[in-house]
Amino acid sequence: MITVEEAKHIILQNTQDFGVEEIPFLDSVGRVLKEDIVADRDFPPFNRVAMDGIAINYRFFQYGVRDFKIEGVQPAGSEQEAMINASNCYEVMTGAVLPENCDTVIRYEDVSINTLMATVNIDEITEGQNIHYQGKDRNEGDILIKKNTVISPSEIGVLATVGKSKVKVAKLPKVMIVSTGDELVGVDKNPEAHQIRRSNVFTLVSLLNELKIPSEIEHLTDKKEVLQQKITSFLNDFDVLLFSGAVSKGKFDFLPEVLEELGVEKLFHRVSQRPGKPFWMGQTDTCKVFAFPGNPVSTFVNCLVYFYPWYYKSAGVKQQPQTAILTENVSFKPDLTYFLQVKLTTENGQLFATPIKGNGSGDLASLVEADGFIELPKTEEAEFKKGEVYPVIRFR
Amino acid sequence: MITVEEAKHIILQNTQDFGVEEIPFLDSVGRVLKEDIVADRDFPPFNRVAMDGIAINYRFFQYGVRDFKIEGVQPAGSEQEAMINASNCYEVMTGAVLPENCDTVIRYEDVSINTLMATVNIDEITEGQNIHYQGKDRNEGDILIKKNTVISPSEIGVLATVGKSKVKVAKLPKVMIVSTGDELVGVDKNPEAHQIRRSNVFTLVSLLNELKIPSEIEHLTDKKEVLQQKITSFLNDFDVLLFSGAVSKGKFDFLPEVLEELGVEKLFHRVSQRPGKPFWMGQTDTCKVFAFPGNPVSTFVNCLVYFYPWYYKSAGVKQQPQTAILTENVSFKPDLTYFLQVKLTTENGQLFATPIKGNGSGDLASLVEADGFIELPKTEEAEFKKGEVYPVIRFR
Repeated sequence: MITVEEAKHIILQNTQDFGVEEIPFLDSVGRVLKEDIVADRDFPPFNRVAMDGIAINYRFFQYGVRDFKIEGVQPAGSEQEAMINASNCYEVMTGAVLPENCDTVIRYEDVSINTLMATVNIDEITEGQNIHYQGKDRNEGDILIKKNTVISPSEIGVLATVGKSKVKVAKLPKVMIVSTGDELVGVDKNPEAHQIRRSNVFTLVSLLNELKIPSEIEHLTDKKEVLQQKITSFLNDFDVLLFSGAVSKGKFDFLPEVLEELGVEKLFHRVSQRPGKPFWMGQTDTCKVFAFPGNPVSTFVNCLVYFYPWYYKSAGVKQQPQTAILTENVSFKPDLTYFLQVKLTTENGQLFATPIKGNGSGDLASLVEADGFIELPKTEEAEFKKGEVYPVIRFR
Repeated sequence: MITVEEAKHIILQNTQDFGVEEIPFLDSVGRVLKEDIVADRDFPPFNRVAMDGIAINYRFFQYGVRDFKIEGVQPAGSEQEAMINASNCYEVMTGAVLPENCDTVIRYEDVSINTLMATVNIDEITEGQNIHYQGKDRNEGDILIKKNTVISPSEIGVLATVGKSKVKVAKLPKVMIVSTGDELVGVDKNPEAHQIRRSNVFTLVSLLNELKIPSEIEHLTDKKEVLQQKITSFLNDFDVLLFSGAVSKGKFDFLPEVLEELGVEKLFHRVSQRPGKPFWMGQTDTCKVFAFPGNPVSTFVNCLVYFYPWYYKSAGVKQQPQTAILTENVSFKPDLTYFLQVKLTTENGQLFATPIKGNGSGDLASLVEADGFIELPKTEEAEFKKGEVYPVIRFR
């Protein structure tokens, strides 16, 4: 049995580059950018009027002029006008090009307009005010968004501005999610007394959807021949297999055995953690196999703790670890890393983690009350005190 | 001009219930649940074996028996067996029904199996151990997920378990996003010197996508007649209109005027904030109109500060406010609420906000470096000190 740290290390040593694809920029939120996005021209691309008002030549204001004849109007979206008489003014609109011979903008609020004449009503203005100068934010050729950024709505506007209607992103692995366990029936079925409905595969589908990874699902019966035959074809057709169940010590937990028989190299089996201990991990040249234990909380936490970081590192993303403050003492006897379900709240800029009183790894419903797992390290003391800080894995 | 608090208050007083629709449960992540999800039977539905091993009758262990004849096997997914001889044992698998006449499970790790006999190798066991008793987690009829929960992957497993293949969620408003501004050209176009590409509408589309709200987009020229005609039909066809631009004091900022002429009741115009001051808000009986200023950062922050909470409250969701700790002194003269772009980091369970040195509301590219906005209150002092805590609006 290896530790959580060892398991993470092995998994992150075995990431895989799935290549790059080009997709429409509006579909790219949540995907990982695989090119630097560069300014195609200066930002702003011209001396841009930043307030509705009048544009003047500051010199004349300085000379004491307060009445400026309105020579013309420069709307946004029009070619640059030239003010012929430098002692005149131009009405200018936010977003417009600053007219030639103007160097200062005074907003309408500080001006009275009488048909052809603008009178400035204030005595203090600054030369160059209310102008967003060409290249002030960024210069042509500057990198605006770095490769390996996870694209969010704030990147979408930048992509649009530089004309990236298509954008290069990390290709997603092709994933098959497989449940096993003869006690499982479909969601639409009425289970017999000894049966329960399938749920883990759907949880996994939606956890992968959060990463924008589509997946297929199948259910296999706990029969060795069936497993052998189906898994052989899955190993050929998919980049990643996620299993839920059949990795423990049961008489029908054939999965590790079958996987090894089919030539899947075992990376490890069993991690010193609760929940999620019987996790089996392996790979072939073309396929990674994450075989999670079948208890709902085990599957859930292992997907977050192992699959998520594996995918992010495969795609080139550096994740920022998070921490939270325990609000209660927790004692935990077994010499295992304890992924404890917690409710997260923020107060005064601090993130607090309050343990959820779940009934163990089978207690699916407790996840509804939790926002994440706090990771309490494997230690012999196993007394974790209120106020101590530990890593936290949020899922909400 | 009203304050940010007043604007928020007015908007939250004018939320709207868009009704309920039923959708496939796997499509429901991010949607707002509009029914209580109730346990259709006990959780677990039977006395469930929680470890692979043998099931015995504890009385015999207590009497000193350590060798138990294996009477049969109870796999997961099979109907409950009955152990005929109470001094025997049954091999049982995780997820199986506990056989009749058994009350305690000993895991394989603590047992030696010799064909027909199991020998227990430990001297201490607890009556009833390794059994997940029927109804221990939840009872039939218990509410598992409350109405008005935003559905996440952790709810998906519960929905599957109780057989909710279809689920009632808040219907989404029908939204049209409109850009104005004659300086704007399409993303695929090469802008002239005085033009820029459209970007705000796409930012808004993706911000709404984060809420799972689909939207349509249009661009209108800054002509009064065009605005009048198009907006008339938008007001009829949509629940919400989001505008970007044409709400300031420019000569071509016809939007507030046109909206009022078309019978849209103005709720307010201009909020004492930076960026985003010229925000105009109004409504008809059937349509809400959010007219945001056209600067990219203004549109972005106003969507987060006003539209998001409006939508969540409309759908019945209570949001948890977040706060962060300033890492630098900030001084801000104008008597306005300041939505300052910040980079967020966590350390020791604390959330720190470091100001981004952006160049104002036109500096679209600065959003790429930010993770959120810290809300610095409107105050005459306007000196915000390192270490002070303020509300924060995350967008990443």
